[in-house]
Amino acid sequence: MVSQRSELKAEVVALKRKRIVNAARRLFYEKGYERSTLDDIAERLQVTKPFIYSYYKNKNELLHEIAQQCIDECLQAQSRILSSKLSTAEKLARIVAEVSQIIIDNQANTIIYLREEMNLDWHVAQKIREQRNEFDHRNMKLLRDGARSGALKVVDERVTARCIGGILVWCALWYRDLGVLSPAAIAQLISENVMSMVGWRKNKPISSNHRGAKNTKPG
Amino acid sequence: MVSQRSELKAEVVALKRKRIVNAARRLFYEKGYERSTLDDIAERLQVTKPFIYSYYKNKNELLHEIAQQCIDECLQAQSRILSSKLSTAEKLARIVAEVSQIIIDNQANTIIYLREEMNLDWHVAQKIREQRNEFDHRNMKLLRDGARSGALKVVDERVTARCIGGILVWCALWYRDLGVLSPAAIAQLISENVMSMVGWRKNKPISSNHRGAKNTKPG
Repeated sequence: MVSQRSELKAEVVALKRKRIVNAARRLFYEKGYERSTLDDIAERLQVTKPFIYSYYKNKNELLHEIAQQCIDECLQAQSRILSSKLSTAEKLARIVAEVSQIIIDNQANTIIYLREEMNLDWHVAQKIREQRNEFDHRNMKLLRDGARSGALKVVDERVTARCIGGILVWCALWYRDLGVLSPAAIAQLISENVMSMVGWRKNKPISSNHRGAKNTKPG
Repeated sequence: MVSQRSELKAEVVALKRKRIVNAARRLFYEKGYERSTLDDIAERLQVTKPFIYSYYKNKNELLHEIAQQCIDECLQAQSRILSSKLSTAEKLARIVAEVSQIIIDNQANTIIYLREEMNLDWHVAQKIREQRNEFDHRNMKLLRDGARSGALKVVDERVTARCIGGILVWCALWYRDLGVLSPAAIAQLISENVMSMVGWRKNKPISSNHRGAKNTKPG
């Protein structure tokens, strides 16, 4: 009984934190970080500022959480796919499709991170840079393995991995311009472009993106 | 004689404006736009603030010029190449190689634009967005032409053009991590990756980048 009660309490805390972060994200996205205040966030949520202080130390802590969210999710998806039994080519195709979808789902987080990196504490900015590098380096290794086995044709694994990184992050900025296509369809087409870049052309669909059915969250 | 004198005068004005923009760019890049003042710029140049005011109305006008520079150069290069007698595939290869080099040369401009878009006047931000769209749409047309003639294999011209855009802009953020490669070599490898994405593999070098010999300006 006690355990159930403490579980419920943890869920309530998580829910409240999520609501606060969502409000902060919308404000930072619309007005910019520097122009948004904790008062604005409290007003939007119709709560008091002390309520926010009981979950977040300050505005900067909210920015940290927002900047961190997307890269954390991308690395988790990449790890999961890398440890699967798929072939090298299938791993790459699926990483690109899933991470495109994550970046579209996290569109506002990605744009806030690109804009506000200078407003992050040095150690947070550094950690995220290292995570971005880690993402690229794992893809480099995958490209190298694929090139060695002959499954992929890679121009230069270092540059190709960075090109993939650019394709992925940039979709946060343009996916809405292709409003006729669903995020899942865009993610699939991005994956096909990347697979074409590494010389992998098959007639069968490149990746069955099991996140495909999920709709994107509003920015 | 009068004409020579007025020509000299125009050159001096251009030189002074360039020095002011360079100082502003360094400051905006290092400290961020909001934290930089015209006093900082004057101090760095060892001039007075009225000196700056005789060339620029305010700090925002400097930001506009910086944000505008890179996309202007990219569109000019693209126009020139599109109106050349090269084949469709060669045009695309050269656009990607030259524009990569321009983005590397304009690294700080690109990063300042990505960070500070919200600090641009609405009509300036809108103009630059339209120019970015124009760049992508011209590439879409090129991809469509190439696909129709059978020279290129294009997954989806709309998505492929946006992927190319992402590859190009993102190189501003990573090219220094590949310090062993010159900007010209990086530009060439990026071009080869894009040409591979559109199914164009030849043994001969894809593009003789005639900007190749030029070194990159410091950020």
